[in-house]
Amino acid sequence: MCQLLGMNCATPTDITFSFKGFSQRAGVTSDHADGWGIAFFENKACRLFIDNQSAVNSPIADCLRRNPIKSKNVIAHIRKATQGNIEVENSHPFMRELWGRHWIFAHNGDLKNYAPVLNGTYLPVGTTDSELAYCALLQGLRDRFGNNEPDLAEIFSVLAELAPTIAAHGTFNFMLSNGQALFAYATTNLHWLIRSWPFSQAHLVDMDLDIDFSHYAKPDDRVAVIATEPLTDNEQWTAFTSGELLGFENGHLRYQAQTHVKLIEPPTQPVQEQAFANAV
Amino acid sequence: MCQLLGMNCATPTDITFSFKGFSQRAGVTSDHADGWGIAFFENKACRLFIDNQSAVNSPIADCLRRNPIKSKNVIAHIRKATQGNIEVENSHPFMRELWGRHWIFAHNGDLKNYAPVLNGTYLPVGTTDSELAYCALLQGLRDRFGNNEPDLAEIFSVLAELAPTIAAHGTFNFMLSNGQALFAYATTNLHWLIRSWPFSQAHLVDMDLDIDFSHYAKPDDRVAVIATEPLTDNEQWTAFTSGELLGFENGHLRYQAQTHVKLIEPPTQPVQEQAFANAV
Repeated sequence: MCQLLGMNCATPTDITFSFKGFSQRAGVTSDHADGWGIAFFENKACRLFIDNQSAVNSPIADCLRRNPIKSKNVIAHIRKATQGNIEVENSHPFMRELWGRHWIFAHNGDLKNYAPVLNGTYLPVGTTDSELAYCALLQGLRDRFGNNEPDLAEIFSVLAELAPTIAAHGTFNFMLSNGQALFAYATTNLHWLIRSWPFSQAHLVDMDLDIDFSHYAKPDDRVAVIATEPLTDNEQWTAFTSGELLGFENGHLRYQAQTHVKLIEPPTQPVQEQAFANAV
Repeated sequence: MCQLLGMNCATPTDITFSFKGFSQRAGVTSDHADGWGIAFFENKACRLFIDNQSAVNSPIADCLRRNPIKSKNVIAHIRKATQGNIEVENSHPFMRELWGRHWIFAHNGDLKNYAPVLNGTYLPVGTTDSELAYCALLQGLRDRFGNNEPDLAEIFSVLAELAPTIAAHGTFNFMLSNGQALFAYATTNLHWLIRSWPFSQAHLVDMDLDIDFSHYAKPDDRVAVIATEPLTDNEQWTAFTSGELLGFENGHLRYQAQTHVKLIEPPTQPVQEQAFANAV
């Protein structure tokens, strides 16, 4: 399993406070030490940092904690390997291009017996179930809209159709962004909150660090934060319901859908084994 | 214009020495200060670092100089903007996926009246002529081979057909890698050398720094270095001829083609102006 962190804002915002707490989970307060990654959008493009070291020890993670990159859309991931080796090719987030924008995806969960039919437009580089799911999502969007870039409501609507078909294979908590909005989906574990004017103080769960955002933020700042587990212990986090898809834009919750996930039953036992079980 | 640096090796190799000299050109020994980027392959995937700051001042560039990443294929770029603003979306190298591998491209030059017909499979995220050319190259490869990944000789052969059609629009020096090989093409300015056993001493052009590779390298190490301008002043660099495409694999020069570039003439003068000119 892994942990996810996302941020969607009205104005370019520094994620350092949240990332400091989050990256403690890569070996200090939790054992998600098999690689990490973070993507910062600037308009249609993003800067992606991935690493197969722990986010606690990685010099690049340290550099990012000391030199903040402001962004309106950020997705970060710390990995505890379940499927796929600890290699760069298996480090989330994954980046692809669609309709002349970078798209970023990160997944927490484990999909079983998942083998989507991919037409070659997007193929996985690594060996994770996560990247397979990402290719299937982008192929699904492209199949539906061709070369005509849809608006965010249309994208959200297709994601709400596609997500439960993938979630039928197991645990599927994910974040996806094209630099305009951040979409987040949960089957088991994801939380969100929105910080807005007048900002207040926050204290991290994973280290004894607090910040008073009211000293730094301006009235038009507005920040949605989404994380596998709440990052702070003195703010009100809302848990996603199972099958819930949310879409955040400019720090506002803009889109909400409740999908219905029906887990695909594991293959039935072979006849011989079944006969034996019945005999016992 | 911009400057390019590439490395193709038999074993994962540290590019720090070359990158130290190269990044001096981003403001110290030259004025290529409008962004930089570097991509390090690890098998089929790569780690890409891009920045719209100067490589001299960038904290990330500094971190990479202090914390070497070993790789068999590296492409780096420092930018002096000609087309496209100084934005992350216009920072080379550019990354896309094809046949389940990351592909990396960086360009030095300037293309005029270049408007390839793109079918939507690969679209530029930024506004550079370079990313347009990259999308056209990948589309050309995909058009030729569909979903069947060709071998390196076949890829090289198609690149030798496509490169001069783009170079017809201006200056087109580029590097391209899929993690297996590094392809480099020049119309005006590119140099290469190969370092192999027994290694010797090298001294940078751009700063007073030398290294004796024989103290670090092993007999099976072998490194091809390609750069816009020679990086060292005591080694034998070979200049590309105009229209030359080279393919390096495991630190060996494996493929060579001489293409014939015919520059497209600029549009003729409108009739009225021509009549006036004739009258004078």
